[in-house]
Amino acid sequence: MTEQARPPLPPGAAGTPRGTLYLVPAPLDFGCDEQAPLEDALPAGTLRKAAGITHWICENAKSTRAYLKRIDALHPLAAPLQGQSITELPREVHKKGDHQGAPGGAAGFDASPLLAAAMAGHDMGLVSEAGMPAVADPGSSVVRAAHDLGVRVEPLTGPVSVLLALAASGLNGQNFAFNGYLPQDAAQRAQRIRELEALALRQGQTQLFIETPYRNPALWQALVKTLQPHTRLAFASGLTLASARTASQLVRHWRQQPEMLDSRTPVVFAIGR
Amino acid sequence: MTEQARPPLPPGAAGTPRGTLYLVPAPLDFGCDEQAPLEDALPAGTLRKAAGITHWICENAKSTRAYLKRIDALHPLAAPLQGQSITELPREVHKKGDHQGAPGGAAGFDASPLLAAAMAGHDMGLVSEAGMPAVADPGSSVVRAAHDLGVRVEPLTGPVSVLLALAASGLNGQNFAFNGYLPQDAAQRAQRIRELEALALRQGQTQLFIETPYRNPALWQALVKTLQPHTRLAFASGLTLASARTASQLVRHWRQQPEMLDSRTPVVFAIGR
Repeated sequence: MTEQARPPLPPGAAGTPRGTLYLVPAPLDFGCDEQAPLEDALPAGTLRKAAGITHWICENAKSTRAYLKRIDALHPLAAPLQGQSITELPREVHKKGDHQGAPGGAAGFDASPLLAAAMAGHDMGLVSEAGMPAVADPGSSVVRAAHDLGVRVEPLTGPVSVLLALAASGLNGQNFAFNGYLPQDAAQRAQRIRELEALALRQGQTQLFIETPYRNPALWQALVKTLQPHTRLAFASGLTLASARTASQLVRHWRQQPEMLDSRTPVVFAIGR
Repeated sequence: MTEQARPPLPPGAAGTPRGTLYLVPAPLDFGCDEQAPLEDALPAGTLRKAAGITHWICENAKSTRAYLKRIDALHPLAAPLQGQSITELPREVHKKGDHQGAPGGAAGFDASPLLAAAMAGHDMGLVSEAGMPAVADPGSSVVRAAHDLGVRVEPLTGPVSVLLALAASGLNGQNFAFNGYLPQDAAQRAQRIRELEALALRQGQTQLFIETPYRNPALWQALVKTLQPHTRLAFASGLTLASARTASQLVRHWRQQPEMLDSRTPVVFAIGR
């Protein structure tokens, strides 16, 4: 919560018009066997803008290069792949989250040096492995630093799994919360499920959360067992893929008609009334 | 929370393969002087899918027709405009929200009769005036009814103002809540602002909300006056338009550098630490 003094601007940047930081969404098929056609999941405007960017801040350089290759096939890149400047966010920012001051967050991380190219007048792209950077993914420290440095921030349209799942859940979309991951320990997880259910039932606030794919079946079993029969439980798996599935039923239905979630596809879960 | 018996399927539908209910996002420029090129804000896959749909459930038939005209210019519609079946959600569902059981919601509304065409084998589209149907907009009753009737639900990718604003805020995107509108009464609004700030500061949960454009300046003033100096306050206005603006600063900054929000452009607000 303390606002630190910002480092001085990089030499030579004074007076140079700053570039824009574009928040570039990525397709949701990262790590999946299946791929979605890029032009079905991302607007041409987003792809064209991404193709023109040559300076990147990313979660993972390898997946960023793979994404740029897919873009290049539709909209030729302004610079060849080997000519792109691609900088990864430090590992500790991935693990702890890079929201300054958030519980467990890497509070000391200052992303402003990463924006040197923007200060020198280049447009930059921020990208994560899937979906929107800085939403259920690292990147917020970079966005915050951009605002503090007077670098314009423009979010580009693309798929966001949490929101697609919310819309497809049929649950309250006027009031909702995203909670990230639930605890791994079974007892703590059950307690957290009951807390989120209480919030959903009392306030009508839909509660969304995610899990690492290989733990999806265990989380699903815990949800069906722990939640009350009249709570509504929804999931959306493989969003934007041909194999995408969405379902939303009362828990008492799920108890009668067991559902096996596959353990390799990203799933978003939602509970509400 | 009570699960009512569903009405019998429409005559003749038994045995017919059901259609899919597509959740069709709309551009964010509804009611704005400016329009965004459609292909910059929506993937070709979404536009192509929408062009093939001839049965619609919508918030407003007039804006749906205007949207279909814009789609037709890029992807010719499967049926001419006058041949499209367009059904509006009832007015009371707009006003009270159509989340069954939500506080103040139109709990008695059963949307399943609206899905007769899907039961008879036609794909259907659900669309609102801007952004994603059923997210900060009506439509969740239709999605819920589709799941209950065994109609497949597929959300299509497009712009969602709340999520674009969250990403551009630089605030915590691992834990966030959307709260809809704040109260209009000044004292109640200030109290609600303080409640949301307490949640944001205590739990690190970013709090998002919206306002009717002509009340944006009043809400902004109330936020700058009511929030604590070290709380971070962000806004995103005119998202996806050429005139889009995003900003995120500590409240003490906003007090020193007053900001006038325009009263005609949609704005999403966010607070956090």
